[in-house]
Order: sequence, then structure tokens, then C-alpha cells
Amino acid sequence: MTPANPDAWTQLPEGSPALACVDIGGTKVAVSMADHRGISGKVSEPTAKEGTRDALAVQIIRLIGESCLAAGIPVSSVGAVGVSSCGPFVLNEGLVELAAPNICGGLAGKARGLPNDWMSALLEAPLRAAFKNVRVENDGVGALEAERRWGALQGVSNCAYVTWSTGIGMGVCVDGHILRGKNGNAGHLGHTFVVEDNEALCGCGLRGDVEALVAGNAIPRRFGAQGYADASALFAAARAGDAQAIDIIDTLCKVMGRALFNVTALFDLQRISLGGSVFWHNQDYLLPRLQAFMQGKLPALTSGLEIVPAGLGERVGDLAALALVMR
Amino acid sequence: MTPANPDAWTQLPEGSPALACVDIGGTKVAVSMADHRGISGKVSEPTAKEGTRDALAVQIIRLIGESCLAAGIPVSSVGAVGVSSCGPFVLNEGLVELAAPNICGGLAGKARGLPNDWMSALLEAPLRAAFKNVRVENDGVGALEAERRWGALQGVSNCAYVTWSTGIGMGVCVDGHILRGKNGNAGHLGHTFVVEDNEALCGCGLRGDVEALVAGNAIPRRFGAQGYADASALFAAARAGDAQAIDIIDTLCKVMGRALFNVTALFDLQRISLGGSVFWHNQDYLLPRLQAFMQGKLPALTSGLEIVPAGLGERVGDLAALALVMR
Repeated sequence: MTPANPDAWTQLPEGSPALACVDIGGTKVAVSMADHRGISGKVSEPTAKEGTRDALAVQIIRLIGESCLAAGIPVSSVGAVGVSSCGPFVLNEGLVELAAPNICGGLAGKARGLPNDWMSALLEAPLRAAFKNVRVENDGVGALEAERRWGALQGVSNCAYVTWSTGIGMGVCVDGHILRGKNGNAGHLGHTFVVEDNEALCGCGLRGDVEALVAGNAIPRRFGAQGYADASALFAAARAGDAQAIDIIDTLCKVMGRALFNVTALFDLQRISLGGSVFWHNQDYLLPRLQAFMQGKLPALTSGLEIVPAGLGERVGDLAALALVMR
Repeated sequence: MTPANPDAWTQLPEGSPALACVDIGGTKVAVSMADHRGISGKVSEPTAKEGTRDALAVQIIRLIGESCLAAGIPVSSVGAVGVSSCGPFVLNEGLVELAAPNICGGLAGKARGLPNDWMSALLEAPLRAAFKNVRVENDGVGALEAERRWGALQGVSNCAYVTWSTGIGMGVCVDGHILRGKNGNAGHLGHTFVVEDNEALCGCGLRGDVEALVAGNAIPRRFGAQGYADASALFAAARAGDAQAIDIIDTLCKVMGRALFNVTALFDLQRISLGGSVFWHNQDYLLPRLQAFMQGKLPALTSGLEIVPAGLGERVGDLAALALVMR
């Protein structure tokens, strides 16, 4: 599905102001610049989680400067900043702050061992003080816009992009309209309940939500003691015929299958595109199992639904922020 | 919340063509007429479930004639027909047919004892052959439009109306846009999975979905043997202090609470309005329990969310079809 020359998409018309593309994850922050040459100057660091509540915003402003330097672009010529970020968001006087469980230590108490007690991290206010045009969206929305523009969701009016990665995220489009909701948090599939489980603790403080059960960061917590240090160890064992690993993955697929079924029933979708590191590196194993879960369940809702790998593959994250600000 | 003179809403401007309002439920079909005098001529019958696949549409066309007669309106002066119907819908050449579990016996096999083997019931095609302007929507969408126009959801851009009745239904509005999806089925909350249960059979053929667990028609199936013949018997016992009935209702509230939480996380809502016979007659008992379930869960998603009784109360269903066709 990926075209031969993906970089051509990212080239702005000659003379356009440069765009800064910021991707905020629970683990790392990446910044790159787009201009008529395409994307360049990518820099990244572990996400700032210590100090004052503006530490992350300060880091981003510094990284935009470093990315400009690396790309040979004067920071004064940055025309817009697109920010694709993990959530959830809270709004403070209309400006986005992050209440992200993998960043803010105040949300799940001390249980997750984060080095801060933030209930939210400042984001949009400091960025707007530094740059004129800033657009901040949930990373699910950014990825969805990228998949709709360049990937597997082109021309599909009712669709979702779901990421199965360190966390679980989603962006949804219904009737051609990309959903945001009151704080820009529509699509928080990771924080929904689909089975009974009162043990697995999510970073958000809930127990037994989808993210607590199947996300990449849940695998060592839940199955480390059984010898599976992370997702790749678990899938390697299953591929080698380890019955326990196969059982565990079947359980993960049931949770994710239910989550995708719920989404289908609630949004009445035509196509779901899947990405994220856990899915992407194991799509041959996971895709047929997820498709089989859906098969025959309430055909009025599921027939006509396609579940496909992300057209942009592992580049979805990189292109999400660009999709938010590119004309 | 209900204004003093609800009938004033339903009065069309003098000289407007009359509107036929059709409400299709799994148990009964009701038809009434609206003109400059308001709503009149209401007729209703048990939903047609025997004979050929057009039996329901034939019944509706006949009932529109009878309603016109009762209201003193010539059937030739009907300007539009609004149809608010239980779903799910399937589209056949762009026209709605019903694949509703409480109507079509073919969907859950013989398990539900319906007197037909229909996989879908004809609806929009025969109606359009008889009338010029026909608008068919999911009853969740109809009720939502009524609640947004006259009820508890006026002026709220991110909201849902949820009915807890014989079945479970929903209509959702995000960013001011009422969601439909590829076949007009967005909002099928009843057919989502929120807990583990492999026993309770839904009319749609699924086991353990929300509707199979908590809907009005699930109560006799699940708890009849324990002495609770229906929802009102169950709630009467709980109010009289019956510990078993209280436990059962707590479990129902947990399922419904999870369903409402999921909806909040997926659509990022400001307000959810609740109606339907099970909820409406027991709102003093249910509302505080549902609100308590939400309390403190992932505040970035739930804070600012209000859960309220339907502003239109038991009239939501009656006004849903009118809201679909009234200018």
C-alpha cells in the first residue's frame, strides 16, 4: 500500500514556510522539520518527566530549535507547529494540557513509579507563547489524518486508525467528520472496559481496561514472571510453539477483538487500519486472529467491515504531526 | 425540565403539510400525525412479525391511513413520513431494511421463538413507493434529535441519549454532528461487550453483550427463575429490601456504568441523557448508582460529564419521529 517514494508527499511547495512536526509519546519526544525538500532534521529524546509542569513544553521548544539547526532552517521561519500527542487532554482556558498516564505521575498514585506528581503537564500555552500557529491533537487524530491522506483510509468516510503499541490509541472518522469531543479526547479505546479483570493496573488508575490488559507496556507487568520480558519475547515463544505463550496471545486477541467489535457497533465503520509496534511486528500472527474474532458476529454491523494493516506502516507516527498542519 | 405546554412544540405553522410520525419498536408500532393543531390520531399495534418480509411495511402504510382517518387529515396531504425505528439497519441499494433481533427470527436461530425466519424486514423501499418524502433513522438518532431540540440536550455539542428499555439503544452527537455511520447504525451500545459472560443470549445472536445482560427483556430470561418476572418485580423487591434483588441490580448498574464509561471515553461527551422504561420508572434508584460508578474514574475523561434523566421523559419515543421531519 506504501507508494514507491513516500518522501514526495512530504515536500511542501517551494517558498512555503517550514513546518515543525512534534510527536509526543509516553517514552520519547521526536521533532522534525518539513519544507520543500521534505522532512529533515529529526531529533528525539526521552520524554521529559522531571521538574516543573512545563518541563515537557520547554523540552519541545528546545528540540524545535535543535531540529531547525539540524535541518538548516532559521527558527524564525517556522510557519506552524503540528503536535501529535498521547493523551488524554484536559483543557485549561481552552488550551491543551496533558493528563497522560505514562507521563504524569500524579494520576495512578505511586504505583507506576514515575518521577513526578503532576496531574497534568503544560503543553499548548507555552508553545503558543513561542510560536504563532500551533495545532495540538491527540495522536490518534494525527495518525488518522495521515492514514486518510496518504495511507489505507483514503476515501473512506467511516473509519478508524487503531494503534497497538506501548499504549492503545485510536482516531475515528464518522460520516467524513473526524471526531474530537469536548476536550479532544474522542477515541480513547485503551481506557474502555471489555472483559472482567480487577487486577491489571493501567497508568490512568483504572483496573482491567484494554490498555492495562494488552498494551506493549502491560506485557512485562502481566507476563514477565512467566518468562516473557516483553512483546517480542512473547511472540517469539508463540511462534516457536510455546503453548502458554499461544494461550496468552489468544487472550490478548480476544480483548482486542472485543474492543474492535465495540468500535464497529458504536461508530458503524467501513474500515479499521491497525498500526503500532506490537501489531506491526506481529501482523502476520495477529491480523487473521482479529479478523476471525469479528467473523459472523452480528453481520448487520460487521459485514462490509475491513480490518487492514496501516498503509503507512511504521511511518504513521512520523507523518501524524505533519498531516495536522500541511495544507 | 419538561415545559408547561409540551404540545405547543408539536404545532406546525398553519398551512404546512401534515407529517406522519412512525415509531417502530420490537414490541409495538405506533403512528401519529402532526399538523398545525399538534400531534393527534395516534394508533398502535403489536409489531407485525408474521408472513412475508414486507409485512411490517404493509402494516405501517395501513396504520398511516388509519391515523389520518383518526386525525381527520386526508392521506393525500401527508407531506413527509418520519420513521424512528429499532435497528440494526442493513442497506439494500441504499434503502433501509431492518435486521432487528426483536423482529427478525432468522438472526438468533430458533432460540428466541420469533414466528418468522427473516434475516431482514423490508422498510424504506415500500414506504418510498407509497410516500414521496420519507426519512428513516435509528430510534437512537430520532430520540437524540428530539432531546437536542426540546429536551435535556439543548445546546450541547457532545452528547448522547441512551435508552434502557426492552432493548438498549443510543444516539450520539460529537462536535455538533449527529453520528450515522456506513449503514446508519452508529450508537449500537446494546451490542457491545463490557464484561465477561458467555451465557446470556441476545436476540442478535451474541452472548453476553450489554443488551443480553441488562435490557428489560433480559430480566425475565435471566432472573425469572429467581422469582423476578420482569423489571418492575425486580425493582419492587429491591425497594422492599430483598438482598438478592439489590445484588442483581448492582450488577446491572455495573454493566450499564461500564457501558456509559466506555461511551464517555470513546466520544468525549459533556452530557448523557437517559430514558427508556426500565430507567424512567426507577430513575431515583438507578441514577445515583450510575453517577457513582463514573465518579473519580479517569477524571480527564469523566470530569465535566453530566448524566441526567431525559428532558422529554416518557415522551421521547413519541417525539423522535417528529423531530426527524419537522423543520
